[in-house]
Amino acid sequence: MPETLLYERLAERLRGQIQRGVLRAGERMPSLRRLGREQRVSLATAVEAYLHLEREGLVEARPRSGYYVRAPHASLPRGLTPARTRAPQPIRNPALLGVLDVLGRKDVLPFHAATPSLELLPSAALATATTRVLRRDPGVALSYAVPQGIAELRQRIAQRYAQCAVDVDPDEIIITAGAMEAITLALRTVTKPGDIVLLETPTYYGLLQAVAALGLRVIEVPNRAGAGIDAACAAELLDRHSVRAAVLVPNFNNPSGSLTSDVDKRALVAACTAHDVVVIEDDLYGELAYSGERPAPLRRFDGGRGHVITCGSFSKMLAPGFRVGWVLGGRWATELLRAKCFSTVATATLPQLAIAEYLSRHDFDRALRRLRRELATNAQRYREAIAHHWPEGTRVSEPTGGMALWLELPAPLEGQALFEAALARGIGTLPGHLFSNRGDYRHHLRLSCGLKWDAPVEAGLRTVGSLAQRLLA
Amino acid sequence: MPETLLYERLAERLRGQIQRGVLRAGERMPSLRRLGREQRVSLATAVEAYLHLEREGLVEARPRSGYYVRAPHASLPRGLTPARTRAPQPIRNPALLGVLDVLGRKDVLPFHAATPSLELLPSAALATATTRVLRRDPGVALSYAVPQGIAELRQRIAQRYAQCAVDVDPDEIIITAGAMEAITLALRTVTKPGDIVLLETPTYYGLLQAVAALGLRVIEVPNRAGAGIDAACAAELLDRHSVRAAVLVPNFNNPSGSLTSDVDKRALVAACTAHDVVVIEDDLYGELAYSGERPAPLRRFDGGRGHVITCGSFSKMLAPGFRVGWVLGGRWATELLRAKCFSTVATATLPQLAIAEYLSRHDFDRALRRLRRELATNAQRYREAIAHHWPEGTRVSEPTGGMALWLELPAPLEGQALFEAALARGIGTLPGHLFSNRGDYRHHLRLSCGLKWDAPVEAGLRTVGSLAQRLLA
Repeated sequence: MPETLLYERLAERLRGQIQRGVLRAGERMPSLRRLGREQRVSLATAVEAYLHLEREGLVEARPRSGYYVRAPHASLPRGLTPARTRAPQPIRNPALLGVLDVLGRKDVLPFHAATPSLELLPSAALATATTRVLRRDPGVALSYAVPQGIAELRQRIAQRYAQCAVDVDPDEIIITAGAMEAITLALRTVTKPGDIVLLETPTYYGLLQAVAALGLRVIEVPNRAGAGIDAACAAELLDRHSVRAAVLVPNFNNPSGSLTSDVDKRALVAACTAHDVVVIEDDLYGELAYSGERPAPLRRFDGGRGHVITCGSFSKMLAPGFRVGWVLGGRWATELLRAKCFSTVATATLPQLAIAEYLSRHDFDRALRRLRRELATNAQRYREAIAHHWPEGTRVSEPTGGMALWLELPAPLEGQALFEAALARGIGTLPGHLFSNRGDYRHHLRLSCGLKWDAPVEAGLRTVGSLAQRLLA
Repeated sequence: MPETLLYERLAERLRGQIQRGVLRAGERMPSLRRLGREQRVSLATAVEAYLHLEREGLVEARPRSGYYVRAPHASLPRGLTPARTRAPQPIRNPALLGVLDVLGRKDVLPFHAATPSLELLPSAALATATTRVLRRDPGVALSYAVPQGIAELRQRIAQRYAQCAVDVDPDEIIITAGAMEAITLALRTVTKPGDIVLLETPTYYGLLQAVAALGLRVIEVPNRAGAGIDAACAAELLDRHSVRAAVLVPNFNNPSGSLTSDVDKRALVAACTAHDVVVIEDDLYGELAYSGERPAPLRRFDGGRGHVITCGSFSKMLAPGFRVGWVLGGRWATELLRAKCFSTVATATLPQLAIAEYLSRHDFDRALRRLRRELATNAQRYREAIAHHWPEGTRVSEPTGGMALWLELPAPLEGQALFEAALARGIGTLPGHLFSNRGDYRHHLRLSCGLKWDAPVEAGLRTVGSLAQRLLA
């Protein structure tokens, strides 16, 4: 019997076991060695069978752990393109505003907060570093930092970009109070009210709010599930509209989790450059690729022209509460520094010193590896829990980085209804329509998988699933 | 001989000694007891003589220290009214932008920085408080604070306002990254581009920048040396122009140091309320009255209508580098919180916790008393040094709070020229035209008296004086 048939037959047998529930979602498949022994096939045949099932989406490999049965619910189809906006729109989703109440609540299980739990971060080391700088020179820690931010920290940030082949001059870096300040400074610097800004759909509600606050109009380019920003569509929109700036999240869009390909990134930067559109990229999740391979920021495709403004932050990988981010100003560095100076004067000194100290004395790369691993595992655990406990027809994104899970609920269940029901039970989620300028994604929900996996988290996912079942019944 | 003549004759004698340089500026006058004994007059007559000389501006009383000879240069005349702007103006002082280079320099004697030296602040106690909160619960210190800011700190701020008879609900307070963020949030919340905003002249250049960045137009109400904001003029301007908001610094205007009277404050709030003009007050220096008597914020005259937005900060009295300020939102509290949430998300947690801890465990009032005393003494020392070493005809403000000294240089000496000459010698100052929308105050200079008095500071003042002499020669 030819080898091809052997592995196909083996795969078919396994497929049947999965479909009948003999092997259940989330369970570990037999090891290759055991499978070979039990089924009397060679190791190569066992490998072929698993690769086949993996291509079919029935099992998946986890590093150093083996193959697992995947959640049976369909994922969001790759390449799904959200509806396009055909003309520039003023911001008009009033529901955005209600989100604040949830953000401010500390008494709920925070599936709504796209931020990692402290247990996933090197918190103890950072606290030690903070105490150390405070003891070494309390005077410096209490004084104003220069508006641009402390030099050592800027140098460390430039070094990290160098690691992913992006040249950054520490002098063009400005330390900000998180990435949101970086983005609002950039928008305030390059736009004036009434200008048209290109955003993704779906996109982070904070970007929609920032754009609204500045009186800007919005056109939207689809961020396709699993495929990221549609560069061809963006180019077409730029041809038709006089766009001033594009605010994009190519690396693990929040909420979709999608990574835009290098091909699309290159095309995006080219199209924006050709139309003199300033590119503001939110690279908040760039260091959080589950594969460990840091995707390129858009800036890498800029050819050193300084046409891209890159915003980042330590909030999602070190200390949310420190509020230390940055902006690589490119050719707007001077104007950005001015804007910074007259909005918050300077970023708080102690958090800057503490992070610089941490980066120089501790192993940040190791901490990042651990964080990525935990997030990747969590994303899978969440998907499996949802597969088991949520209504049939629920579709879940397959993020390859970051900590957002983007769910499409089976109609007629609405994200807002589930959000409210969950909140009443002390569980925070975010309804999908927040991530749209026009109230799209009514059947979507965003969950954060940045929480440390434990019994309350598992129970919480089960509870929201039951609530969804009940709302559908 | 009648008592009146006795004290007049005594005063005349002393006046002669001062004018001939027998008693020199800055020197202590004989004690009342010694004067009585030496001049064979009663204690009451000695007191009368000194009060007479004080009214003439020749001597001054210093608490628990006695009478001192005052600097001979004329002060800026009380009630001097800067030229009025007759029509709304777009911001147009390009020189404002150059100021950044100085603000960012750490290698100059910082007469340009209106911030107290760390030696004048309770830095050690605050560092201890910071270490304590970090040790007690590092997790909380590294996590996001709620966007509004931590509850205990908001409560402490409300308590301080209660001490000066202003009722504040902790729920309407939002903790900000310093007072500048508070003011820009307020402006972004209540204005739209093209709106007219009422500012003082002179006023803090940061306000001019913030207003410019938002595309607002400006009309100016005089801040009179020693008398503060001219409420009658403000009312007249509001009658004639459709003003949206007023951004005012009634308590120790920066740079003039003037305190606006309660009568004018009441009239200002009444006029603004009548014209539906939102009052944004920058109360950054309210706690720094040399007399120790905290002047009222404008909010006290608002009758609980919530029509005044009050901005403040710990930057000038506790820790500049912590970047912790606040805004009392009044009836805009909800909108302000929204704006905060989508500009910097939340203020850094650790500095908030550390200040709350400091306020609950240390004696802030004592630290403030010490700071006020040092600033008051410094202001006088600066005035005397200027009297001795600067060109004849230099006029100096007489601040009663804060840390700004506002100098008018004798023509044709320009502030910009002296600023540049001093900077070349490693001494920072700020030229007067920065404090005007229209480049007025060309012959003015602002100095900070927040530095700890020591030999380099004294030498620095002497050096700038010599440079001024040379530029005039």
